[in-house]
Amino acid sequence: MKKKHLLRFGLPKGSLQDATIEKMGKAGFNISVSSRSYVPYVDDEELAIRMIRAQEISRYVEHGYLDCGITGHDWIQENGSKVHEVGEFRFSKVTRQPARWVLAVPEDSPIKSVKDLKGKRIATEVVNLTKRYLRKHKVKAEVEFSWGATEVKAHELVDAIVEITETGSSLRANKLRIVDTLLESTPRLIANHQSWKDPWKRQKIEKIALLLKGALEAESKVGLKMNIAHKNLATLLRTLPALRNPTISNLSQEGWVAVETIIDEHIVRELIPELKAAGAEGIIEYPLNKVVY
Amino acid sequence: MKKKHLLRFGLPKGSLQDATIEKMGKAGFNISVSSRSYVPYVDDEELAIRMIRAQEISRYVEHGYLDCGITGHDWIQENGSKVHEVGEFRFSKVTRQPARWVLAVPEDSPIKSVKDLKGKRIATEVVNLTKRYLRKHKVKAEVEFSWGATEVKAHELVDAIVEITETGSSLRANKLRIVDTLLESTPRLIANHQSWKDPWKRQKIEKIALLLKGALEAESKVGLKMNIAHKNLATLLRTLPALRNPTISNLSQEGWVAVETIIDEHIVRELIPELKAAGAEGIIEYPLNKVVY
Amino acid sequence: MKKKHLLRFGLPKGSLQDATIEKMGKAGFNISVSSRSYVPYVDDEELAIRMIRAQEISRYVEHGYLDCGITGHDWIQENGSKVHEVGEFRFSKVTRQPARWVLAVPEDSPIKSVKDLKGKRIATEVVNLTKRYLRKHKVKAEVEFSWGATEVKAHELVDAIVEITETGSSLRANKLRIVDTLLESTPRLIANHQSWKDPWKRQKIEKIALLLKGALEAESKVGLKMNIAHKNLATLLRTLPALRNPTISNLSQEGWVAVETIIDEHIVRELIPELKAAGAEGIIEYPLNKVVY
Amino acid sequence: MKKKHLLRFGLPKGSLQDATIEKMGKAGFNISVSSRSYVPYVDDEELAIRMIRAQEISRYVEHGYLDCGITGHDWIQENGSKVHEVGEFRFSKVTRQPARWVLAVPEDSPIKSVKDLKGKRIATEVVNLTKRYLRKHKVKAEVEFSWGATEVKAHELVDAIVEITETGSSLRANKLRIVDTLLESTPRLIANHQSWKDPWKRQKIEKIALLLKGALEAESKVGLKMNIAHKNLATLLRTLPALRNPTISNLSQEGWVAVETIIDEHIVRELIPELKAAGAEGIIEYPLNKVVY
Amino acid sequence: MKKKHLLRFGLPKGSLQDATIEKMGKAGFNISVSSRSYVPYVDDEELAIRMIRAQEISRYVEHGYLDCGITGHDWIQENGSKVHEVGEFRFSKVTRQPARWVLAVPEDSPIKSVKDLKGKRIATEVVNLTKRYLRKHKVKAEVEFSWGATEVKAHELVDAIVEITETGSSLRANKLRIVDTLLESTPRLIANHQSWKDPWKRQKIEKIALLLKGALEAESKVGLKMNIAHKNLATLLRTLPALRNPTISNLSQEGWVAVETIIDEHIVRELIPELKAAGAEGIIEYPLNKVVY
Amino acid sequence: MKKKHLLRFGLPKGSLQDATIEKMGKAGFNISVSSRSYVPYVDDEELAIRMIRAQEISRYVEHGYLDCGITGHDWIQENGSKVHEVGEFRFSKVTRQPARWVLAVPEDSPIKSVKDLKGKRIATEVVNLTKRYLRKHKVKAEVEFSWGATEVKAHELVDAIVEITETGSSLRANKLRIVDTLLESTPRLIANHQSWKDPWKRQKIEKIALLLKGALEAESKVGLKMNIAHKNLATLLRTLPALRNPTISNLSQEGWVAVETIIDEHIVRELIPELKAAGAEGIIEYPLNKVVY
Repeated sequence: MKKKHLLRFGLPKGSLQDATIEKMGKAGFNISVSSRSYVPYVDDEELAIRMIRAQEISRYVEHGYLDCGITGHDWIQENGSKVHEVGEFRFSKVTRQPARWVLAVPEDSPIKSVKDLKGKRIATEVVNLTKRYLRKHKVKAEVEFSWGATEVKAHELVDAIVEITETGSSLRANKLRIVDTLLESTPRLIANHQSWKDPWKRQKIEKIALLLKGALEAESKVGLKMNIAHKNLATLLRTLPALRNPTISNLSQEGWVAVETIIDEHIVRELIPELKAAGAEGIIEYPLNKVVY
Repeated sequence: MKKKHLLRFGLPKGSLQDATIEKMGKAGFNISVSSRSYVPYVDDEELAIRMIRAQEISRYVEHGYLDCGITGHDWIQENGSKVHEVGEFRFSKVTRQPARWVLAVPEDSPIKSVKDLKGKRIATEVVNLTKRYLRKHKVKAEVEFSWGATEVKAHELVDAIVEITETGSSLRANKLRIVDTLLESTPRLIANHQSWKDPWKRQKIEKIALLLKGALEAESKVGLKMNIAHKNLATLLRTLPALRNPTISNLSQEGWVAVETIIDEHIVRELIPELKAAGAEGIIEYPLNKVVY
Repeated sequence: MKKKHLLRFGLPKGSLQDATIEKMGKAGFNISVSSRSYVPYVDDEELAIRMIRAQEISRYVEHGYLDCGITGHDWIQENGSKVHEVGEFRFSKVTRQPARWVLAVPEDSPIKSVKDLKGKRIATEVVNLTKRYLRKHKVKAEVEFSWGATEVKAHELVDAIVEITETGSSLRANKLRIVDTLLESTPRLIANHQSWKDPWKRQKIEKIALLLKGALEAESKVGLKMNIAHKNLATLLRTLPALRNPTISNLSQEGWVAVETIIDEHIVRELIPELKAAGAEGIIEYPLNKVVY
Repeated sequence: MKKKHLLRFGLPKGSLQDATIEKMGKAGFNISVSSRSYVPYVDDEELAIRMIRAQEISRYVEHGYLDCGITGHDWIQENGSKVHEVGEFRFSKVTRQPARWVLAVPEDSPIKSVKDLKGKRIATEVVNLTKRYLRKHKVKAEVEFSWGATEVKAHELVDAIVEITETGSSLRANKLRIVDTLLESTPRLIANHQSWKDPWKRQKIEKIALLLKGALEAESKVGLKMNIAHKNLATLLRTLPALRNPTISNLSQEGWVAVETIIDEHIVRELIPELKAAGAEGIIEYPLNKVVY
Repeated sequence: MKKKHLLRFGLPKGSLQDATIEKMGKAGFNISVSSRSYVPYVDDEELAIRMIRAQEISRYVEHGYLDCGITGHDWIQENGSKVHEVGEFRFSKVTRQPARWVLAVPEDSPIKSVKDLKGKRIATEVVNLTKRYLRKHKVKAEVEFSWGATEVKAHELVDAIVEITETGSSLRANKLRIVDTLLESTPRLIANHQSWKDPWKRQKIEKIALLLKGALEAESKVGLKMNIAHKNLATLLRTLPALRNPTISNLSQEGWVAVETIIDEHIVRELIPELKAAGAEGIIEYPLNKVVY
Repeated sequence: MKKKHLLRFGLPKGSLQDATIEKMGKAGFNISVSSRSYVPYVDDEELAIRMIRAQEISRYVEHGYLDCGITGHDWIQENGSKVHEVGEFRFSKVTRQPARWVLAVPEDSPIKSVKDLKGKRIATEVVNLTKRYLRKHKVKAEVEFSWGATEVKAHELVDAIVEITETGSSLRANKLRIVDTLLESTPRLIANHQSWKDPWKRQKIEKIALLLKGALEAESKVGLKMNIAHKNLATLLRTLPALRNPTISNLSQEGWVAVETIIDEHIVRELIPELKAAGAEGIIEYPLNKVVY
């Protein structure tokens, strides 16, 4: 019953699962995961979705069990997987910051830099990344795999940890101090090298990448429309370069035009007061599903 | 305190309840159900909402206890209710498929068609539909009402079941095979025959139907805007008939136009790559609340 | 590490918390509250957010521990706080009604008006408001602070209660009758008098007020577009004043125009049927993020 | 892999499920229900447990698909199943009262007795019981099957309901008045007539009945021990017949004896103060797992 | 329908509710609270149970709306209620420590003793207790009522707090330091003075107190039995005074006796190893329901 | 603040956490884990409890960061930790079976024995155990670490898995077949070799082991008492060897004795019917907290 054209696509199970399925839905691929079946439903017969731990996706893409997948840059590096990287994504979120793997120690630890790790013990989920980092800095230390709750260990069981963080607030709550950053990580769409050479698969992957990019782009953009007296238009556009390349249309009301554009959502809060000050009226902001340049 | 003009409207309690209340909200009728009261609040004094099991709504509409209601085609048929059907709706969902009542047996059962049911026992929630189906095929078999967990019974307690399914995945997970489909079912807005003859009630029902239709239509549609060089426009429109009847407006940039249209959400994933290939730029997709043709 | 320019902003903890954080997010200020830290994250380094019980915010704004905050009119009054009121908001909700503090008694109580309270005992969370109300009506009665579950007390423990309600349905469910309304209350943005005199703080507060107002405004508005034959346009606009000041643009189709406007969401359900009757076609309604006049 | 000696045992799925599995565990048969499998695990290879709706168990026992099962007297009667009743159980609970199916109407209904139902409509889950009850009282009325939320219907959709209740508090909360009781119901262990004739099956069923009875008996009993001066013993035993047949043993302390017995848990609260008054000291009450006379 | 003899009994709603209902059940009074009714069910027709906030029970007992109730010593003191205290209870728990109201400040606060509070602001739920404490120490400071989340306020909004704690761990987690203890508090059974003079009510209250005391006593006791050679018995009893007043009985095995006693559960872990060392065999520990001396 | 005598005790975080804390409580050591602190409270000042993943406990005991801990035999073996094993425990449960690590493949896989694994890929959480097993059988295969959801991988991503199971039901639900068992595992109390040489620590560990053993023993035992005519006693004891070494005491009723003993809970269901047949009366079974021989 296997279709001739089928793309095996790995998505991350676990903490990223809901976000990834939501993004795929916004891209136009509706996935539903049932507790009764390990094969998720997707409304595209050319796709076979598999939910796999983010830590393992790059391994199965490399080996060809999957044609492509979405996983973090960190785990591609940790596994040292040889895969084709199709694109990088930003999953928009409150902090707008990539995840970072950092070296952390208790607030009152004498360890101030990587050099102080000599002869110490470090617990981490990313053993290979940590060893590579130590080699780079020519420091000899013991690295042990941590099965979880790594932050708690730094106070008693080991001398330092390498842990993932976004804002550092969880580290601070555990009274830990960041010594160094080993790696910043963002989600990536990766493909198996053989699959990437297959024209149908490559085209399919590129199409998904385009739509996913469009959906993610739209999460951090909004549409903005406003009315302005024609005589104020030039000044408005000159002083507010954020309004690049707007659509201008005439209004029925003599001497007024409508200006419409797409801008970054996070500058709206600065822009709207300025627009008002520049004479704009009836400013409305509306949401977008996709933005493809 | 009863108002002169009041429409008694039954909505399905249970698994469809949240979806129905959400759709009604999108149509413009905000309903809130309190655990302390069996009468839901609705922000329209001309409506009296009652939450009733989907299985029973058609019965109470027929008898006139309700003026109208939303329920499934299946239960109208099962109850044999004499009611006026105002409209059919599609509650958009992942699968975009109507629910089906199917005859199912264990994967390794010798039963291959309805004819093999002769002398067998069938468990189902829709006893009348099943008896009618057997009569139509001139098969004599025993039909018993199932209070639930019907899928489990097929392996031990009865010979076959008639059960509802969307994608068949729950049946597959229970190692059951579909033998035949008895009925496809979608949500319907139905009215009591007397109420339908009352001009005020009929007009009110039709208004709700129009708005609900508009809201549901909007769930499966999106707005699409893009810029294109005027010279490429004709080709674009000819090769992409999905863009029927778009709004074309001139841009301030010489030689470029903006094209805007409403399209089915589920073709966007095919269309956007083609639009890009045809020279469209700045493609944006935006969500809709209602679409009324 | 404190920044030179920092605005201390109090938001209501508890039942209003999620709604307030959602509204602030819509205004462009993304806040995330962690269970591990009492200082919420906000993506604006000029803001320091504090989550404080609505009952206490005005007190801390008055004393200057906070520069400004959002709280209910009721608690500003109850506390008798001397603060600058920057603006009033409507948090849109199903009922579109402000909260009211009402005097309530058992359905069968002989108490029919405030005068009948003489010598009685009243339980309430707003002891000061209630005492002021009694003084105004020259009624002597005992007022005791209620720690909660006030509605239950009216039947046995006290003679009357002063309780908050929106639709009255919870009071009705407890078989209570409303005797009088003491106060209607809506959310307010308030500022400390000193902070309001500081130019930077005032400007920052006004900017937040503008954006929050824009976001709340947008919750109760929608965008509406439709096509209409030019010959029907004048009639349409004359008969439907709700369509005030629309944007009219020519369509490529000869003799047809597109009409676009922003209207109150809650009149859409009346308007769309009328628009259709007036010859409008292809009516679409779309959601808005912000509306700033 | 089926064992020669196997007893197919049906237990009620749904609201009684947890209680029944707990009682079976107390009887010595540990059952665990997995969400992944419809066949529960039981630590007795001679048993095959099936979880089936209480409404349906008697049907499948009658037909021989199950050898025996636990279900309510009400559903045996409703289904008119021909089965052997092995024993009646009391599942101890707060109220110590059997469930009752009652005829209920709105508090202000003119219906005062079964005779007033003539020509009325009654909604119920137990259609057969209700029809039999009407026939017995020679009353003609319409009975319709209710899929749930029956209590709400009595106010608008039908004239009366037949519903199950224990303390009547849910009926009171819905402002309904009990007119008559149709049936009291307790859990029963029933067996298929053929299975009951099979010596091995009968012996196995009787053993389970004995242990279950012992476990349920123990739920409403406690052990009681106390010391008393020998001279007060006769008076104690004479005045407190509840202490029937106690074990008396001498204590090392001259002139004192220990008295030990098993009594109903619900009389302890009356008995202990009396025991103390009669001179008993060091009274202790301890829990029991099983009591078999 | 009110019985002649009825005792109105207030139990604490909220955080103590489940524990109190469980203890009452162990005492022999089974209570069930329904979400649909504010009057809990109790299997004793002479009792009328009311669930009321612990903060308010002493007030309603004092005024006679309740005959008696269970509440904390702290709230009796805070309210200054004039009631009869029938008994003190220990609700056994992990820490076996009474709750304490403590004065707490940030770890690095200059406040070291109550004297340092002069001119400061203190937030607390127990305003009266705190004012009395300050008066006793002749310290003038401002005390304001805290609606909750008091621990968070100590860092920014006030100078000190008076808060309840058991182990101090929540204060430590908030980086607060305990300066002084104002009050230790345990649950109390209190009665209205008039009710206490009524013979029937007093006897009923005393009976409940006896049974509740017996049930709580049993929570911290266990039964212990062991066999020992008769020749070792005297030494065992002399060296282990914890085994006070045991029941000694002869065993069928020549020269051996059985020893049985009731002891504090929390010394078992020390005692059992010592018993074993002293020659005891077959030591068993069993649970108790009630212990009444 | 560290006490002179302190035993650092590691307990397994995660799926075993609740069970372990419950068993420790039964042994007499009450532990409470707070979400606010990583150091659990225990009511014994000589203990410092740490919750650590079962996979890591043996590592930290070996290194001396912990004096002792409870973990599975499997993870001690997987880590190859050099620790002193103090005792083995059975955590009583429904199945009364130890956990097993098994080699499993899809039901229709050609792999029938370990020999067939040659050149294949195996996913497992216990990489070292699996490699050791392959070496023992002289089979070369690739073993990769699985981060979870291992059962799902066997169908597509690898050729076989090594996974933990109790009853095999989860494997069967995933349509996997067990090929071989690598290791049976039970919980163990282990100690660091140095700590074991310290007299105080060893004695403390042994005391905990004794009490824990006593508590676990009691979970699978019950007390049994019955009355029997003296003339039937000898026969009873001879025919029912399970009643080994009972306590016999004379009853006040002439010619009758009371028999009391401790037996395995899981034979009660066979024994009670036999006791009754042998003439025993008034049989009661009661629960135990601890049993120490």
